[in-house]
Amino acid sequence: MNRVYNFGAGPAMLPTSVMEQAQKDFLDWNGMGCSVIEISHRSKEFDALVTETDELLREVAGLPDDFEILYIHGGAQLQFAAVPLNLLGLNPAHKAAYLETGNFAGLARKEAQRFGNVTVAATSEDTNFNRIPDFDPSTLDADTSYVHLTSNNTIFGTRWNEFPDTGDIPLVADMTSELLSRRLNFDQFGVIFAGLQKNLGPSGMAVVLVRKNLIGKALEQTPSLLNYKTYADAHSMPNTINTFAVYMMNLMLKWLKDQGGVDAIEKVNAQKAELLYNLIDSNDFFIGTADKAHRSHMNVTFNLANSDLDKQFVAEAEAAGLYALKGHRKVGGIRASIYNAMPLAGCEALAEFMKQFAAKHG
Amino acid sequence: MNRVYNFGAGPAMLPTSVMEQAQKDFLDWNGMGCSVIEISHRSKEFDALVTETDELLREVAGLPDDFEILYIHGGAQLQFAAVPLNLLGLNPAHKAAYLETGNFAGLARKEAQRFGNVTVAATSEDTNFNRIPDFDPSTLDADTSYVHLTSNNTIFGTRWNEFPDTGDIPLVADMTSELLSRRLNFDQFGVIFAGLQKNLGPSGMAVVLVRKNLIGKALEQTPSLLNYKTYADAHSMPNTINTFAVYMMNLMLKWLKDQGGVDAIEKVNAQKAELLYNLIDSNDFFIGTADKAHRSHMNVTFNLANSDLDKQFVAEAEAAGLYALKGHRKVGGIRASIYNAMPLAGCEALAEFMKQFAAKHG
Repeated sequence: MNRVYNFGAGPAMLPTSVMEQAQKDFLDWNGMGCSVIEISHRSKEFDALVTETDELLREVAGLPDDFEILYIHGGAQLQFAAVPLNLLGLNPAHKAAYLETGNFAGLARKEAQRFGNVTVAATSEDTNFNRIPDFDPSTLDADTSYVHLTSNNTIFGTRWNEFPDTGDIPLVADMTSELLSRRLNFDQFGVIFAGLQKNLGPSGMAVVLVRKNLIGKALEQTPSLLNYKTYADAHSMPNTINTFAVYMMNLMLKWLKDQGGVDAIEKVNAQKAELLYNLIDSNDFFIGTADKAHRSHMNVTFNLANSDLDKQFVAEAEAAGLYALKGHRKVGGIRASIYNAMPLAGCEALAEFMKQFAAKHG
Repeated sequence: MNRVYNFGAGPAMLPTSVMEQAQKDFLDWNGMGCSVIEISHRSKEFDALVTETDELLREVAGLPDDFEILYIHGGAQLQFAAVPLNLLGLNPAHKAAYLETGNFAGLARKEAQRFGNVTVAATSEDTNFNRIPDFDPSTLDADTSYVHLTSNNTIFGTRWNEFPDTGDIPLVADMTSELLSRRLNFDQFGVIFAGLQKNLGPSGMAVVLVRKNLIGKALEQTPSLLNYKTYADAHSMPNTINTFAVYMMNLMLKWLKDQGGVDAIEKVNAQKAELLYNLIDSNDFFIGTADKAHRSHMNVTFNLANSDLDKQFVAEAEAAGLYALKGHRKVGGIRASIYNAMPLAGCEALAEFMKQFAAKHG
């Protein structure tokens, strides 16, 4: 079997060792004579798995006790509704401020507008989101319920290097494409959420880290299964949880711990990104699309100087086992998504391919 | 490897052949060099899988073209909110009628009460839901937006043998525990939904079959990812779909087709249920809990005449490879869930165990 290097933006490649473990367990997990997806979420074995997953996540992320861990159906985009439904009620004005740094930030803002008074407090739309905009938290109204940002922008290849200090106003971060790829100071955040399908496992579920004192203020119209309190009160199992996703996330956390944890993987991620950005910056054949000061370590976006070659680049890369490099239509060109599970060797193989492609066509 | 017979109510056992296929494909699906959970839901390969799944479902279920197939995050319980949010607006009175036949019917009714004017049109609560109550559709107000029922009640072991004719008022059925286990006349229904984790695959997703003319009337407060139109407009992929669940459902549909389809499995299911009910009725050691006229073919609930033996029954069964037979706390006793994937041999093994247990302790 030849496993490819998958540079797709997500669902993303997972470590081969994790996939092999899951394959081995697939018909007989934990000596039970059946799969983890074939047992009750109410069984003591499954409950132990969720508890272990909580503990691993706290340990690996360095998550403080004043945060609740919730596993919620539907990925990050259902959180675009859940966040306003749960948090707008923190203040009678039902105001929220959104920092618009790309497609998903925009979708989140539009969804929130169904439920409250939403303002765009900063945007980089004027330069097609190729940078993180300046933002001065002192301009926020004091009765703002929360501030929302997208920490890493998969389509545009940018990230917040430093997070704004919003003081008493809770900062909500969509970290779908970078949770557990970098060390965080959780003191800066009220809520962090992430769909699993980039760094944490398969698609279909989000992990939501919520400061405990923000739980219990949901608007009356909140569906039970979008209410953080419903999940907090039931160890995330008010109904049947996505058992496969929890299991895979558990394996991913063990793998990350084996890699040396978040600090170790953050260094590797920086090394992987630097390798590609250095090549892009040193070769006129390639043009980086994101502002250098805000470049993502997860999604490396670039154009070929001759965009007529884009299709050929993607096709030849695929033939070389470098999969899914086509850029998103909103930026064009090429995108290499290099989440935690992409080994340095994958980026080296891509860099080598890029050099050869440039030499051949340059 | 010794695979057990898992009589749990769900997530339920899946056919060993399906599990083996998934295990084989786990690191390399479709010759792509990666798993189906590691590729983009926007890839042509994944889109083809969803389309094939649609076609298989239409064929196996006999689903007419005037129904849309939607794959929605969150299982059946998120539909308890989605149904009223999508359907109450069919009529300005925002009225819905619920037929209360058990725990999940009650949860669905309570969730709907957040959004509109909900009445209980019939209930069997007075006998702890051991039967399907009489219901006369002519008693409904003409301006009722929809009628909701739970077709099979997993906890109480009852089912609707015949469905009420609600005329112009759409009938909504939660069929989580029996979709594809019996032939349906879809003309009787407006919406049918089911969480996957009983007869269709792993947990975390629901399949929703909606009559096309009921789509597009959602209340304004509906989160985008609970709005049927959002899914119908995007081939169920407005955001990242639960790719693993779709893949497993695809395999389950192929398996069902190989078994001879719904008509064939319905016969086997009747045979399995009859085997157990006959034994219960012919042996004073066992007492069936559901009214004989409304017995479920999916969940066989019974008590031991001497309930002191319940724990021992469950433990000895487990030691014999007959797993998860403990009844739900709301009924007590024993419950054998025998969904499509439970082979006749599993029911035979259980019946044999029951006879021996009764002989030993009777």
